[in-house]
Amino acid sequence: MSTRRTFIKQTGKIGALSFLPFTDLLNNPKQEHTMKTATRWADGSRLVVSISMQFESGGQPDNAESPFPQNMEKGYSDLPAATWYQYGYKEGIPRMLDNWDKLGIKVTSHMVGSAVLNNPQLAKEIVDRGHEAAAHGMNWSAQYNLPYEDEKKFIKDGLDAVKKVTGATTVGYNANWLRRGENTLKILQELGFTYHIDDLSRDEPFIIQVNNRDFAVVPYTLRNNDILLIEGRHFSTDQFFSQVKADFDQLYAEGEFKRRQLSISFHDRIGGSPQMVKTAYDLIKYMQQHKGVSFKRKDQIAELILNDRTAIREK
Amino acid sequence: MSTRRTFIKQTGKIGALSFLPFTDLLNNPKQEHTMKTATRWADGSRLVVSISMQFESGGQPDNAESPFPQNMEKGYSDLPAATWYQYGYKEGIPRMLDNWDKLGIKVTSHMVGSAVLNNPQLAKEIVDRGHEAAAHGMNWSAQYNLPYEDEKKFIKDGLDAVKKVTGATTVGYNANWLRRGENTLKILQELGFTYHIDDLSRDEPFIIQVNNRDFAVVPYTLRNNDILLIEGRHFSTDQFFSQVKADFDQLYAEGEFKRRQLSISFHDRIGGSPQMVKTAYDLIKYMQQHKGVSFKRKDQIAELILNDRTAIREK
Amino acid sequence: MSTRRTFIKQTGKIGALSFLPFTDLLNNPKQEHTMKTATRWADGSRLVVSISMQFESGGQPDNAESPFPQNMEKGYSDLPAATWYQYGYKEGIPRMLDNWDKLGIKVTSHMVGSAVLNNPQLAKEIVDRGHEAAAHGMNWSAQYNLPYEDEKKFIKDGLDAVKKVTGATTVGYNANWLRRGENTLKILQELGFTYHIDDLSRDEPFIIQVNNRDFAVVPYTLRNNDILLIEGRHFSTDQFFSQVKADFDQLYAEGEFKRRQLSISFHDRIGGSPQMVKTAYDLIKYMQQHKGVSFKRKDQIAELILNDRTAIREK
Amino acid sequence: MSTRRTFIKQTGKIGALSFLPFTDLLNNPKQEHTMKTATRWADGSRLVVSISMQFESGGQPDNAESPFPQNMEKGYSDLPAATWYQYGYKEGIPRMLDNWDKLGIKVTSHMVGSAVLNNPQLAKEIVDRGHEAAAHGMNWSAQYNLPYEDEKKFIKDGLDAVKKVTGATTVGYNANWLRRGENTLKILQELGFTYHIDDLSRDEPFIIQVNNRDFAVVPYTLRNNDILLIEGRHFSTDQFFSQVKADFDQLYAEGEFKRRQLSISFHDRIGGSPQMVKTAYDLIKYMQQHKGVSFKRKDQIAELILNDRTAIREK
Repeated sequence: MSTRRTFIKQTGKIGALSFLPFTDLLNNPKQEHTMKTATRWADGSRLVVSISMQFESGGQPDNAESPFPQNMEKGYSDLPAATWYQYGYKEGIPRMLDNWDKLGIKVTSHMVGSAVLNNPQLAKEIVDRGHEAAAHGMNWSAQYNLPYEDEKKFIKDGLDAVKKVTGATTVGYNANWLRRGENTLKILQELGFTYHIDDLSRDEPFIIQVNNRDFAVVPYTLRNNDILLIEGRHFSTDQFFSQVKADFDQLYAEGEFKRRQLSISFHDRIGGSPQMVKTAYDLIKYMQQHKGVSFKRKDQIAELILNDRTAIREK
Repeated sequence: MSTRRTFIKQTGKIGALSFLPFTDLLNNPKQEHTMKTATRWADGSRLVVSISMQFESGGQPDNAESPFPQNMEKGYSDLPAATWYQYGYKEGIPRMLDNWDKLGIKVTSHMVGSAVLNNPQLAKEIVDRGHEAAAHGMNWSAQYNLPYEDEKKFIKDGLDAVKKVTGATTVGYNANWLRRGENTLKILQELGFTYHIDDLSRDEPFIIQVNNRDFAVVPYTLRNNDILLIEGRHFSTDQFFSQVKADFDQLYAEGEFKRRQLSISFHDRIGGSPQMVKTAYDLIKYMQQHKGVSFKRKDQIAELILNDRTAIREK
Repeated sequence: MSTRRTFIKQTGKIGALSFLPFTDLLNNPKQEHTMKTATRWADGSRLVVSISMQFESGGQPDNAESPFPQNMEKGYSDLPAATWYQYGYKEGIPRMLDNWDKLGIKVTSHMVGSAVLNNPQLAKEIVDRGHEAAAHGMNWSAQYNLPYEDEKKFIKDGLDAVKKVTGATTVGYNANWLRRGENTLKILQELGFTYHIDDLSRDEPFIIQVNNRDFAVVPYTLRNNDILLIEGRHFSTDQFFSQVKADFDQLYAEGEFKRRQLSISFHDRIGGSPQMVKTAYDLIKYMQQHKGVSFKRKDQIAELILNDRTAIREK
Repeated sequence: MSTRRTFIKQTGKIGALSFLPFTDLLNNPKQEHTMKTATRWADGSRLVVSISMQFESGGQPDNAESPFPQNMEKGYSDLPAATWYQYGYKEGIPRMLDNWDKLGIKVTSHMVGSAVLNNPQLAKEIVDRGHEAAAHGMNWSAQYNLPYEDEKKFIKDGLDAVKKVTGATTVGYNANWLRRGENTLKILQELGFTYHIDDLSRDEPFIIQVNNRDFAVVPYTLRNNDILLIEGRHFSTDQFFSQVKADFDQLYAEGEFKRRQLSISFHDRIGGSPQMVKTAYDLIKYMQQHKGVSFKRKDQIAELILNDRTAIREK
C-alpha cells in the first residue's frame, strides 16, 4: 500500500488520473500523455539495457542438474554432464566476450567464487575487457537457509575470491536462484555492496532502506532469461529473439516518459552457444538502431539511481 | 441431448441440414450458407471480443506457486517469488490500463478480495478508468469444497471488499481455477450476480436456469489464456499472437451468420509484462481494422444475452 | 527381417541398390530415381491424405484428464473440465463439419460408443454429411488388458451403438490410446472389420495376415496429432501448420515414385477450436493446390490397398 | 585450468589479449581480428559439419520409452510403441539415406549391435552407400555402471556385430545417453577405436591422452539434437530449422579465424520422419550455399585432428 502511494507521488501519474472526471477519461484515450510528469533517467537515456553474463560453470556441485536425465545410479559420476558445464568456460564466455566487443557494450558478470578459482585467467579477462565483476556467492548452493554468520562468510568468501583473482571489488549481488534470506541485504550492506538484483517487481531500479541507509535494487529478469527459456527447452532461439524484441519495443515506447530498464540474462554454458550468441547479436544490433538506448553495467545503474532524487523509494 | 436439440432449434442450421438429401450435400460444399438462419448479436456486432484483466497479485497465499522451483525448505519465505507477484500491481495493471486507454477499449477485471484490500487505490483506478470490477472470491483459494454457508461468506466478502474500495457492485463471478462447486451458482443468484464465466463449452454466451431464473454464462478461455500459455512457458509472445489471431480470423468469419464471442485472458503479473502488452496491442489493433468488431465488458455481454429472445438456453 | 525383405521385394528399390557397385553409388547422388520401380497408388493418386475427426467428448469418464490441474479433493466433480469436453460436441464437431464441407473433403470419425449414445443426432449428422463412422470402443477406457470375451463385447457394443444411431456399419478400428492387446486384431476380423489404425510403422497402408486372412493397416499419426501437440500445449497453431506442411511437402515429393499417405488427427474438443479449424483450412487449401492429392476416408484406403496386388504384405 | 592454458597457447588469442592495455581494448571493438592467429582446419575447410544418423530401432528393450504414456499395467506389451520404433528402420533410415544422396553428403551412423543384427540388410546398405558405421554398444542399455570386463565385452560385441553384418570396422564410439564410465576410454583405446563423441565441451575436435596415447574427441550435440528437441515435443520442425541455422551462421563466421565444427544429430524414428527429412534438406541446402563448408564423417574428422599439430590437447 505505502509502496503504491510512493509510486504515485513519484510519477504524479496515477494520482493525477484519479482526480480526472470519468468523461475526461473517455475523451482522453491517449493516456500515456499523463506520463509526461513521470521521471526519466538522470543521464538522459531513453532506455537502459542491462545484460548479465553469469559465470558459474566450473563451480557447480558434483552431478549438478543438466540436460541429461537425472536417473543415474548412486556412486557414479555424470561424465557427459560435466562436459556440458565445461563448455561454459571453454567456449561460452570467450564467445560472449568477443560478441560484447563487437557490439561495443559492457555487461555485468555475476561470478560464483569457486568458478572463479577454477578458471582465474578467464575471470581476469572478463574484468580486463571492461566488464563488471559482481558476486554470486562462494559456491553454487542455497544461502537463504544459512545462519547469519555462515551466510556472511559465504558471501565474503565469494567477494574475496573475485578480488584476489581479478583485482575487482564486487558491489553487486545475486543469490543462488535469486533466493536471498532475511539477513542477506543487511550482510550485503555491511560488506560494502551497493545493490542487489534478486527482485522482479519493477522495470526500473529503485531504492530501499537497509540498516537505515540507501541500498539500490537493480531488477533482474525471468522473462528474458536463457536458463528458463532456452535451457528449459521451451523456446527456440528465434522465439527468444521475438520475445525480447517485444519487451524492448514496449519499454522503449514507455521510455519517452518514464525511467525504464530492460534486463536480459545469459549463462555461460547456455547463452554462450553459437545460436544464442548470434541471437544476442541480432537483438542488440536492433536495439542500437534506436536513439537514446544505452547499455550499462549494473554498478553504473546502481550509482545513477542512488544519486537520483527522483528515484522510487520503497519501504 | 436436449442441449443439442435446443441448439438446433435456435440456429435452424443443423436441423435443416439433416433433411437435405445426401446428393444435395455433395453439391453444396459452401455449408456456411445454411448458417444464414442462425441468430446474431442483438446489437448488430459481427464479433464481440471480451478481455479479462485478472487482479490477483497481493492476494496470493504465502509461497504461492511461481516460476521459481518449488523446492524450498519449510519455514522459509520465497522472497524473489513475492517480488514476482508485486510486479502485477506495480507494473502490470498500470501498464495494461494505459494500453486499454490507448486502444479505446474497456475490459473486465475479476478481483480477488484480499488483493483489492492490499492495493485499494489501484482497484479504484481500474473502475475510475471505466472498466468492470467483477468478483473472484475473497481469497486466492479453492471454493468448490466449501460448505454452503462458508462458500456464501467467501463470495460475499469478496463482493463487499470490491464495493467498499471501488464503489462498484460486482455482477459477474470467476471461481479460483474456474472450479465452482455444486452450490456456487445458486449462491451467486442469491447475491445478485447476473453471470459467471467458469464455462468453456461455447464460443458465445448463453442462458441457464438457476433457482428457476435466468442466469447468464459468459464463457472464459484456456486457449487464449496468458497463465497457461505464457506463464507455463509453452509459448513465446509471437506464438500467443499467432494463435489468438487465428482464433479471431475464424470467429470473425463465422460471425457473419452467427453470434460469436472471442475471449482473451490476461493476469496482472503475466499479461502486464512489456512483451505481453505490446503483443496485446498488436492483436487488438489488428482486430480493430475489421468492421463490426466490438469490445465489451462481460457485464454488458450478460445484459445483452439476457435480453435476447434468440439466445441459446440450456438445461 | 522378413519384413524388410518383403519390403525390398515389393519396391525393388533397395534390393537393386545393394547390387550396385560402390562407385556407381558415388556417381549417382539422385538416389530417388531408383524409386521409379516402387509401386504407387492403384487409383493414380500422387498422395493420399487421410484425416481423423475423433468423436469422444460426452463419452469420457468422470473427472477425466483435462487442461485443469489434477489436484482436486476426492469426492468432488471437476465442473469446468466437464464444460471443456462439452465444447467438443457443442462447437468442435459442428465447426469441423462445416469446414470439411467448405473444403469438399470427407474424413473418418472414430466414435466412442458412449459419446454416440449421448449425442446421437450429431453422430448421425456426421454420417449424413458423408463422413465415415468408424469404431473407437464402447467406452473411453483401456482394452489391452481385457480378457478375450470382455474385449469382444467392448468392441461389439461400440459397433452396435454406432450402427443403431447412425445406420452405418463400422469397418475400421482405433483402440484407446492405440493400445490394442494380443487378441484385438483377431476379434476385429471376427466382427467383420477390414482395417485398424493403431500402427505408426509406415507412411502407407499395408496388409497383414489375421486368422489367415488379409487385414489392412491404415497407419495413424502422432507427429501430426492435435492431442499431443496442441492439447499438450507444446505447439501454437502456426507451429502445427508449419510441421504438417513440411510433412506434406516431403511426402508429396516421394509420391512421385511411391505410394504415400499423410495422416492428420483432430479431436472434437481440440481440433474443433476456431484457431485449429482455421489452421486446418489453411493447410488443406495449400495441399489442394497440388496436383494428384486426394483426400480419402480410411475405409476407402483400406479397400484400395486390400485390392492392390503390389501392396506391402507383412508377417 | 591447465585446459584453459593449453587453449590459450593453441590459439594465441586470449594470451595476446591479456597483454593489451585496457584503452586498446576500448579502441578495438572488432575483437575477432585477434583471432587471426587461431588455427584453422588443416584441410582448408572454413567449417566442418558432421551429421549423426543413429541406428537404434529394433534394438530397444521391451516397452522402451516412447511418445506413449508410461502407464501400462505390468505384463502387457506396448504394441503401438513397438510400431513407433519399427518406423525407424522401415521408413526413417531409408528416407534419410535417399536424402543424404540427394544432398551428396556422407554421415556417421552409430549403430546399436542388436539393431544391426535385427536388420542386417539395412545396416549393410548404410555402409554400401558410403556412410560410416560407428559403434553404439551391443544393446540399448547403460554401460557406465558395468565392471571392466563386462563393459569390454559389451563394446566388443557391438563392434563384432557391425563387422559381421557390414564388413566395416568401427573406430568411433557413442555410449548410451553419452554416459561413459571411468574405464570406457581405456577400453576403446584397447579395442582399436580412435575417437569417441560423448563430450559437449567444445565446438571443435581435440586430442586427449588415453593410456598415454592420443585419442580424438569429436564433440556431439544436445542443442541440435532431434531426440531432445523434436521427440521431446519442445520444438516444431521450423523451430529446429531456425535454431540450427543460427548455430551455423555463428560458427561459419567464427570459422574465418578458427577451427569450428557444427554437429547435428538425427535418430532413425525421429529424424527420419518426412517433416524432419524435409527440414534437414532445407538446412543442408542452405549451408551448401556457403563457401568452404565441408560435410565429413566423424572418422574423417578424427583422422584430420589426430594428424594436426595445431590441435587442442587436453589433460
